[in-house]
Amino acid sequence: MQLHELYSSLAIRNDHKILLLVIDGLGGMSDPGHGYKTELEYAKHPNLDLLASQGTTGMLTPVLPGITPGSGPAHLALFGLDPVAFNIGRGVLEALGIGLVPAPADVLARGNFCTVDSANAITDRRAGRIATDVCEQRLALLREIRVPNAEIELHAVKDHRFVLRLKGPDLDGDIENTDPGAVGAKPKPAKALTPRAENTANLVNAFVTQALDRLKSQPPANALVLRGFSMLPQIPSLQELYGLRSAALALYPMYKGLARVVRMDILDCGRSLPDQLLALESHWHQYDYFFVHYKYTDSCGEDGDFLSKAKHIEELDRSLDRMIRLNPAVLAVTGDHSTPACLKSHSWHPVPLLLSSPNCRRDGSTAFTEAVCARGALGNIQSKYLMGILLAHALRLAKFGA
Amino acid sequence: MQLHELYSSLAIRNDHKILLLVIDGLGGMSDPGHGYKTELEYAKHPNLDLLASQGTTGMLTPVLPGITPGSGPAHLALFGLDPVAFNIGRGVLEALGIGLVPAPADVLARGNFCTVDSANAITDRRAGRIATDVCEQRLALLREIRVPNAEIELHAVKDHRFVLRLKGPDLDGDIENTDPGAVGAKPKPAKALTPRAENTANLVNAFVTQALDRLKSQPPANALVLRGFSMLPQIPSLQELYGLRSAALALYPMYKGLARVVRMDILDCGRSLPDQLLALESHWHQYDYFFVHYKYTDSCGEDGDFLSKAKHIEELDRSLDRMIRLNPAVLAVTGDHSTPACLKSHSWHPVPLLLSSPNCRRDGSTAFTEAVCARGALGNIQSKYLMGILLAHALRLAKFGA
Repeated sequence: MQLHELYSSLAIRNDHKILLLVIDGLGGMSDPGHGYKTELEYAKHPNLDLLASQGTTGMLTPVLPGITPGSGPAHLALFGLDPVAFNIGRGVLEALGIGLVPAPADVLARGNFCTVDSANAITDRRAGRIATDVCEQRLALLREIRVPNAEIELHAVKDHRFVLRLKGPDLDGDIENTDPGAVGAKPKPAKALTPRAENTANLVNAFVTQALDRLKSQPPANALVLRGFSMLPQIPSLQELYGLRSAALALYPMYKGLARVVRMDILDCGRSLPDQLLALESHWHQYDYFFVHYKYTDSCGEDGDFLSKAKHIEELDRSLDRMIRLNPAVLAVTGDHSTPACLKSHSWHPVPLLLSSPNCRRDGSTAFTEAVCARGALGNIQSKYLMGILLAHALRLAKFGA
Repeated sequence: MQLHELYSSLAIRNDHKILLLVIDGLGGMSDPGHGYKTELEYAKHPNLDLLASQGTTGMLTPVLPGITPGSGPAHLALFGLDPVAFNIGRGVLEALGIGLVPAPADVLARGNFCTVDSANAITDRRAGRIATDVCEQRLALLREIRVPNAEIELHAVKDHRFVLRLKGPDLDGDIENTDPGAVGAKPKPAKALTPRAENTANLVNAFVTQALDRLKSQPPANALVLRGFSMLPQIPSLQELYGLRSAALALYPMYKGLARVVRMDILDCGRSLPDQLLALESHWHQYDYFFVHYKYTDSCGEDGDFLSKAKHIEELDRSLDRMIRLNPAVLAVTGDHSTPACLKSHSWHPVPLLLSSPNCRRDGSTAFTEAVCARGALGNIQSKYLMGILLAHALRLAKFGA
């Protein structure tokens, strides 16, 4: 039995509400430029500290120790799914990132325009980073291509990047990248990794052959490569699993898309944190579970901007009051992963977690920082267990065994 | 390989004794009525604190984060078994609770007398909570019933509750409840969930048909429902797995029964903690592993009586001296699960653990409380790992690999 099935088998319904605040890329690293503090340790966040002192803390390991997760696995784990069993392919994730939600039968791939020489060897894997509108023009050419018994959709992402979506009967995403991954190599034909995927690989090759024909006279974008062929994993909704009417309050398409994967309702929440809070307040009575996503901490971490990341934590802290005033049965604050400014990227470091609930055991935490949470009573647990902990504190799990 | 098989493959014998003291329902929750302390934090227990300061502490998660265990899974985990893989059904547990130990081939079910109306719909799921002696009279009527090739035993539990034990060849417990679980619904026929269980379901239905015939003129107990059909899981003994001659010192039938499941010797230990201590002392040289069970903390927690639970912790603390004087190679003190008085029920909160042994690494713990143990060096581990830790500290596990 998988973990979410075990939790699901114990789920009971009541009217206790769960609010999960995900501060993207929350965790940091000891920064030598800032007294070896993390962004969270450097920032002032009296509301988070107060919550921690009245609650219980711990650390979340997004996937497994040492593993740096992408946004997909990091969020699926927070939603209670094993991120290794339910891995989301690059093609599907790229689609979600531009607001496209694949149907379960679709095959998705991430596409790159590239430059090849007369011997068909790649000379530039990004086709000189053509502008997005040039990408759009090239895709317009390719949209005229037809393949038998299937439909091909092409969506520009940014620069040389696009999404290919294949719709039709009996498709399968178990196909090797056509991207050889290196300059000097030639694009490869799509190759089925299982017999079930052979039909799909043939369709992809039929498309690519015609596409190359249309592109060949148009350098620098005179070829294309595809990778991350994948299908949407079949994931039960939070409603089916736990009887939770769930809603996502996220500003960016990627996170709306990830919430759609577990079939949350996606609430329209404008363009800023105050808009998100308004939407949260006005939909409070309609749902049981709220996923509030705060993006800027991650972006600042990726930019290597320690001080901005700290400032955004402080901004969020000032908004916490409004979430607390809604009086959720369980309020959890954590991140999907760490994004230390000094690494300028996602990292493997565990993520601080704070849980506030009348049903929690206060553990003497004095603040919401990595150092305090690492000694918190929840211990260091994998993110996929968070859902069970949230349900338990909302008294939504029956006893296991007699 | 399952965990207990791994530990078993490394087990070596020596004469180092292990004493496991299980304080039932030990863990608490921050109680607003008592300064946000838990019962263990409120109680005075200098002996436990001293042991902690000379030992190492940690937290046990009985099953998985967020999961509230019943007594069955909670104890099997402490005995080193994966409580999800070896779940004990309600029928078997009910039997153990009245001192009945099923044979491996038996099928057990929990029975309730109930009241039905003229349309056979349930009007009272507990038959007006008939007294136990009335239950006993009704069972006497039903004991005359015969079914082909099998024997039916009926045992009164309390009030309207009884245990049905089916003995015979080729029985299987994979049968749906006949209890519809709601007033207004009709009792259902027993339905096999697998082809192997069809014969057993037929026997159950043959019994129920005759039983209803005998009960129909006897309201309020004019019908019955059965649930939790189950068989004893096949579990190797601690002797077979680890070469441990093991003994249980428990006062209540349920815990004696659970110890019997892993085939401990059940020592006669009177009716009180002093009796248990006497029995422990007098059998000290005969066994390698002792399971001492202390019930009252759980009962007080279930009753919502914070102060009584704290008092019983203090009572136990005063008796600790006698266990220490036996000088076990390893003395572990923990609970099977938490039973916070303010929840009046078992809960999912991790359980404090204290380990005292010449072979332990002192971790600077200053007391035996949830807050201290949450920061202890053993970390927060699943209860099923405790057996390996006990064996290790008793130098009873050989090196793994070369």
